[in-house]
Amino acid sequence: MTAPRPAARNEVRADIHTLATPLVRLANEPYYHATGDEVEVFAAAAGSRLPVMLKGPTGCGKTRFVEHMAWRLKRPLVTVACHDDLTTADLVGRYLIVGDETVWMDGPLTAAVRAGAICYLDEIVEARKDTTVVIHPLTDSRRALPVEKRGEYIEAPPDFMLVISWNPGYQSVLKEMKPSTRQRFVALDFDYPQADTEARIVVHEGGVDADTAQKLVKLGGLTRKLKGAGLDEGAGTRLLVHAAQLIASGMAPATACTAAIARPLADEPDTRDALDDLIRAVF
Amino acid sequence: MTAPRPAARNEVRADIHTLATPLVRLANEPYYHATGDEVEVFAAAAGSRLPVMLKGPTGCGKTRFVEHMAWRLKRPLVTVACHDDLTTADLVGRYLIVGDETVWMDGPLTAAVRAGAICYLDEIVEARKDTTVVIHPLTDSRRALPVEKRGEYIEAPPDFMLVISWNPGYQSVLKEMKPSTRQRFVALDFDYPQADTEARIVVHEGGVDADTAQKLVKLGGLTRKLKGAGLDEGAGTRLLVHAAQLIASGMAPATACTAAIARPLADEPDTRDALDDLIRAVF
Amino acid sequence: MTAPRPAARNEVRADIHTLATPLVRLANEPYYHATGDEVEVFAAAAGSRLPVMLKGPTGCGKTRFVEHMAWRLKRPLVTVACHDDLTTADLVGRYLIVGDETVWMDGPLTAAVRAGAICYLDEIVEARKDTTVVIHPLTDSRRALPVEKRGEYIEAPPDFMLVISWNPGYQSVLKEMKPSTRQRFVALDFDYPQADTEARIVVHEGGVDADTAQKLVKLGGLTRKLKGAGLDEGAGTRLLVHAAQLIASGMAPATACTAAIARPLADEPDTRDALDDLIRAVF
Amino acid sequence: MTAPRPAARNEVRADIHTLATPLVRLANEPYYHATGDEVEVFAAAAGSRLPVMLKGPTGCGKTRFVEHMAWRLKRPLVTVACHDDLTTADLVGRYLIVGDETVWMDGPLTAAVRAGAICYLDEIVEARKDTTVVIHPLTDSRRALPVEKRGEYIEAPPDFMLVISWNPGYQSVLKEMKPSTRQRFVALDFDYPQADTEARIVVHEGGVDADTAQKLVKLGGLTRKLKGAGLDEGAGTRLLVHAAQLIASGMAPATACTAAIARPLADEPDTRDALDDLIRAVF
Amino acid sequence: MTAPRPAARNEVRADIHTLATPLVRLANEPYYHATGDEVEVFAAAAGSRLPVMLKGPTGCGKTRFVEHMAWRLKRPLVTVACHDDLTTADLVGRYLIVGDETVWMDGPLTAAVRAGAICYLDEIVEARKDTTVVIHPLTDSRRALPVEKRGEYIEAPPDFMLVISWNPGYQSVLKEMKPSTRQRFVALDFDYPQADTEARIVVHEGGVDADTAQKLVKLGGLTRKLKGAGLDEGAGTRLLVHAAQLIASGMAPATACTAAIARPLADEPDTRDALDDLIRAVF
Amino acid sequence: MTAPRPAARNEVRADIHTLATPLVRLANEPYYHATGDEVEVFAAAAGSRLPVMLKGPTGCGKTRFVEHMAWRLKRPLVTVACHDDLTTADLVGRYLIVGDETVWMDGPLTAAVRAGAICYLDEIVEARKDTTVVIHPLTDSRRALPVEKRGEYIEAPPDFMLVISWNPGYQSVLKEMKPSTRQRFVALDFDYPQADTEARIVVHEGGVDADTAQKLVKLGGLTRKLKGAGLDEGAGTRLLVHAAQLIASGMAPATACTAAIARPLADEPDTRDALDDLIRAVF
Repeated sequence: MTAPRPAARNEVRADIHTLATPLVRLANEPYYHATGDEVEVFAAAAGSRLPVMLKGPTGCGKTRFVEHMAWRLKRPLVTVACHDDLTTADLVGRYLIVGDETVWMDGPLTAAVRAGAICYLDEIVEARKDTTVVIHPLTDSRRALPVEKRGEYIEAPPDFMLVISWNPGYQSVLKEMKPSTRQRFVALDFDYPQADTEARIVVHEGGVDADTAQKLVKLGGLTRKLKGAGLDEGAGTRLLVHAAQLIASGMAPATACTAAIARPLADEPDTRDALDDLIRAVF
Repeated sequence: MTAPRPAARNEVRADIHTLATPLVRLANEPYYHATGDEVEVFAAAAGSRLPVMLKGPTGCGKTRFVEHMAWRLKRPLVTVACHDDLTTADLVGRYLIVGDETVWMDGPLTAAVRAGAICYLDEIVEARKDTTVVIHPLTDSRRALPVEKRGEYIEAPPDFMLVISWNPGYQSVLKEMKPSTRQRFVALDFDYPQADTEARIVVHEGGVDADTAQKLVKLGGLTRKLKGAGLDEGAGTRLLVHAAQLIASGMAPATACTAAIARPLADEPDTRDALDDLIRAVF
Repeated sequence: MTAPRPAARNEVRADIHTLATPLVRLANEPYYHATGDEVEVFAAAAGSRLPVMLKGPTGCGKTRFVEHMAWRLKRPLVTVACHDDLTTADLVGRYLIVGDETVWMDGPLTAAVRAGAICYLDEIVEARKDTTVVIHPLTDSRRALPVEKRGEYIEAPPDFMLVISWNPGYQSVLKEMKPSTRQRFVALDFDYPQADTEARIVVHEGGVDADTAQKLVKLGGLTRKLKGAGLDEGAGTRLLVHAAQLIASGMAPATACTAAIARPLADEPDTRDALDDLIRAVF
Repeated sequence: MTAPRPAARNEVRADIHTLATPLVRLANEPYYHATGDEVEVFAAAAGSRLPVMLKGPTGCGKTRFVEHMAWRLKRPLVTVACHDDLTTADLVGRYLIVGDETVWMDGPLTAAVRAGAICYLDEIVEARKDTTVVIHPLTDSRRALPVEKRGEYIEAPPDFMLVISWNPGYQSVLKEMKPSTRQRFVALDFDYPQADTEARIVVHEGGVDADTAQKLVKLGGLTRKLKGAGLDEGAGTRLLVHAAQLIASGMAPATACTAAIARPLADEPDTRDALDDLIRAVF
Repeated sequence: MTAPRPAARNEVRADIHTLATPLVRLANEPYYHATGDEVEVFAAAAGSRLPVMLKGPTGCGKTRFVEHMAWRLKRPLVTVACHDDLTTADLVGRYLIVGDETVWMDGPLTAAVRAGAICYLDEIVEARKDTTVVIHPLTDSRRALPVEKRGEYIEAPPDFMLVISWNPGYQSVLKEMKPSTRQRFVALDFDYPQADTEARIVVHEGGVDADTAQKLVKLGGLTRKLKGAGLDEGAGTRLLVHAAQLIASGMAPATACTAAIARPLADEPDTRDALDDLIRAVF
Repeated sequence: MTAPRPAARNEVRADIHTLATPLVRLANEPYYHATGDEVEVFAAAAGSRLPVMLKGPTGCGKTRFVEHMAWRLKRPLVTVACHDDLTTADLVGRYLIVGDETVWMDGPLTAAVRAGAICYLDEIVEARKDTTVVIHPLTDSRRALPVEKRGEYIEAPPDFMLVISWNPGYQSVLKEMKPSTRQRFVALDFDYPQADTEARIVVHEGGVDADTAQKLVKLGGLTRKLKGAGLDEGAGTRLLVHAAQLIASGMAPATACTAAIARPLADEPDTRDALDDLIRAVF
């Protein structure tokens, strides 16, 4: 496909500038413990210039994994947390009146395309529907982003990569992905890490000894069995690290687990009692 | 019908310019394997200046077919992916304040009409209702686009052609096309290509040998039988090409099929297991 | 009723200009075959300055009839295809900032009132409710259009005529017309033309011989019997003309009927098969 | 209550002008035939400075009655047809940027208050809820209109009078009037005029002889018995006048009644047949 | 709590002016007949700087009571009738572009806070939810109004008092007050006045003799027993005063009661007949 | 993670200033009586730079606790009462046109991040969904706030702390917190204080003697048992203080309890009677 040919008419292009979008370049390796072939598949998809979709529950390391891969592939990273009101303009950019001048401001997606960065759209199904359509031409053989408001058609450089995530576990039926969007991505399933892996993460990030970490991981595993039986989701690794940090700062383990694990998970008295019992059983 | 007569009053027409919309002219033949008389019908409709509607499931080649026909008919192509928030103004154009000047910017539909291009509105029923009405005068004997905000009435040149697509398979009942819109189009049904045709596409686009391609096509066919039994849709040709690309880059076939075919299709554990069984059976 | 008296206070009237709305004056007689007393009733309503409502299914000639009557009565015609987002401002007009000047732009209804034109609001019930109210003073003894944003009260000249259409067949219950709106119009019911009339239309517009035209009309009639039994509506005359045009360009009749009649009408496999059987039976 | 005291601070009041709202002063007596004590009650309410609510079916003369009373009381009249999107700003006014100046434009309600006019809000329950609240201070002992955007508090002159109408017959349950609004008005029930009165109206306005008028009134009465049995409402006097006008222009009575009475009332074939039978029985 | 410390950075404060909000100072005592300890409780709440909530049916004197207390406490009064579209900006204020200057306009709540007035929010639950939150800091120990758009934090003077009203009788379940809002107010229940009190009000405000007033009060009491049995609410005192005013202007009592009491209350024929019977029984 | 690298292109940064957001620094210790280990957990979370979520019913002291902790930790406090219409821009900031200059105004969250303050988002689930997403990067290892409209990426200083509250008791099912948000916080459960603690609060804040305070606390406890049996929630401590203040100003205890406790809690006659019985039983 040749470069797009602009319609030949009198072109008046506004004096356009571009404000900066934060492109993060990670200097140090983000700590990540692989649990399968996810590093290889992600790298191969990057090599084949295919977009990637990460699926899995809260707090199992999807965001950390993308940071790790951005560091490993030496590409800048742009992260966008999607939400109900996120529009195409929020991703692609908009005009802004600054003084007496009209300035175009690239959105994070456009900035990532121009820079050959990894663009990570976290929980994409939360966004408005127009956002899932705007990524279509970036996810097929065109690999291009039409910026209609500027009459611009940006072909993505080879290093640009689109990554999206979603959590099939608690998304409502109104927030399903359409097949015409799903079938554009290589996909990876994520789950909680295995016990010894998770314990090593808790030691590394929470600053506690291995024995405490193993107890916290055991507690986490018990809460995950309550999923569907009072809890929407079990404790993610993040909660175990929070509890470890409080313990490391001198708090009694049971107090720390109550504040960092049990209370964030449950509001119902019965479930709260069940979680308190689990804490007493482990510590 | 004579050219429209503007109401004779003091006309103050803003100093209006037009920004460029990306009109793509395809230099090389897009790979497309015809499966019926679709090329002839499309060409005849183009000759009779009738608009065309493409119907069929995800990933069966509708977009590629339009690119192929644009190349074959030597016309520029404007593609618009429709979505919930696409309005008439997004298609027709809007005024933009640039510095101290008001600039009119043609939308993609207007640009296509002016240029005598093929305008392809992908998944038209996703758009807001006003967009389906704005195409009415372009799809009957008037073949004209009223641009009300500029007081302009553009008669389409003979080469302008409107093409729309939709997927009756998974559209909700709220997204039906009204008879008064449907009955303006010549229509073509699309389906997945036949096995040998699809295998040739996978070899051509995925870079694998014929044997691997046939296995991938076999796997694709098995997933399509799961439609309605756990899957919203079976794997489109695109997914088979993705798997082939990962295999061609050195990945084990089963790993590639899991990441490129099984994971994008299904979230439910039972369906995922069924797909894994299919992969093990084929490879 | 005397001319409205503006409130006497210091009047600052913006320097207001008016952009052009496309008023079509038809130079040649639009082809129309009367099927009852519709021409007489429309002419009498025009003479008595009463508004007219056209009711009937898709593609039975309502729009063509209005064009024909505009030509016959030698009045300019303004056509507005109504839709879900059509507002009063879209009909009446709005202010536009052009350079450093505020310009008023008449909407199509206002332009038609000023010019003494026929204003045809196609599928009025699709529009937002405010639009049905704005036409009230134009449809009773006042015959006036208050343009509140300009503080203007335009009395319609004798030649102004308001025509609306709707299709009671498939409008949802949410899109009913209120009695207070309905009871302002003289109404005409439209239906498909009789077989010989329709065949003459197909010959005239589709460029086929009489025998082919009769077969197409027969096929059209058969599809109309499927209304409610798989189809929302049968094929309008327009679809028969499309098929004729494809046949006239050299396509086999069955192929032409499939693409121009069967595929636009139905998506369900059973209905599609039934339509294919009809085509085989006729050709 | 003393005149409102503006908060004493540095007041910068924009250079504000007011555009004209159409205030109609009726020079000739609008034809109206009283059917009860409505003239006396309205006049007494006007004398006691109480607001009035008119209730009744479509086309029974509410609007004409208000025009008649405005003429009789020698007050200017402002009529607003309410609808789903009518907001407080549409009634009270808004700022408008004209050139480099900000101009305030009184809405019709504000204009009516300043001028001591009758303000008639037709079908008030159709408007947005904020509009029903803005009239509250005008309908109690305050008799004032706060124009919050201008910081103005306009006390109504003695001749200002607020009149609203609604049709309890077909309003949806979502469009009920709240007791806190209803209990601010003196109310009058309207119904179709008695046969001889209505015949005199049809003669006067439709230009037919007494015999034809009586037949039309008889036909109208028959349709009103179909209310609830196929019709939402029977024919209002307006429809009878329309039919008379067509007859007076030379059309056959049955044809005129079909176009002016039967077709506007009904879409369902059964109901249409019933109406046709009625026409044949009368003429 | 110390005065808020603005963040120390380069402060550019727009040249801000404030337009006037109507603050009413009542010169004469508004007629009010106390029915319990409401005057004492209101005065004590004012002394303790606590906000007050008035609850009760339509037309039982809540608004009049607030006016009376404002007069008695010698404080200015700002009244806001709340509705579905009332936003925080409507209460707190907004920026307005006037000529080439940006002017801040205090909303009625802000104006009341600055002036130490009583701010009466009538039917608060009708307003949008953000309005109920903006009053929170004014109703606890902070007694302050953050005006976020100006970066201003206004501490209320001792005389500022917030009063709200609502009618629990006919509010929908969607318009409940949250406990976190309710539990900020001292509350007073209002009901219709006792018969002799109400008769004295009707004599005073309606200008009739005591005997007529007693009959009107008797009629009002009878309608109140129909609440839930055909009526949403019985006649408020206001309606009795309206009828009295019409009688005082010379109208027959039965006619006046029909127009001022029966017709505003009921639309259903059965209920209307029941009310007519009551009128005949009393007069 | 290194400081974010802005994309290197021609940067035109509007002349940007920042208006002040009210940062409150508390000079005197806000009265707070700890009921468990909440002070220790909050301080440890602050030390570990973890965000905190406070859960519990209306009026149990959550807001006071945050004020107390802000005083204790010697950090400024920014409080935002969340509501249905609170958007990201309300929290993060927006551009404002002031004269001929475009000025950026930090929202309260951005101001708190820059100042190293405690930002307290009260009833966060009431806000729009985009607001819960904007706090995500502030609540994980990034501890940063991307201000996309300014192209700014603010890393939070160590003293910044995010605190949110919600009341699981009466939140609707539509206002649940997603696990991906919940699992970012250390959580604390709040409940009403114990009787002797609460009595001391009532003495301190309400100005009554210990005996009256104990009776009020007893009454409060009785109302809390009615939760679910007529009341959405029992009386919070705030209501007991209100009643004490009225009593301290000289009102009879029963009158004060009716106005300050019973009336704000209940509208239903049965519940109101039950509360009146409780008041009579206690006093």
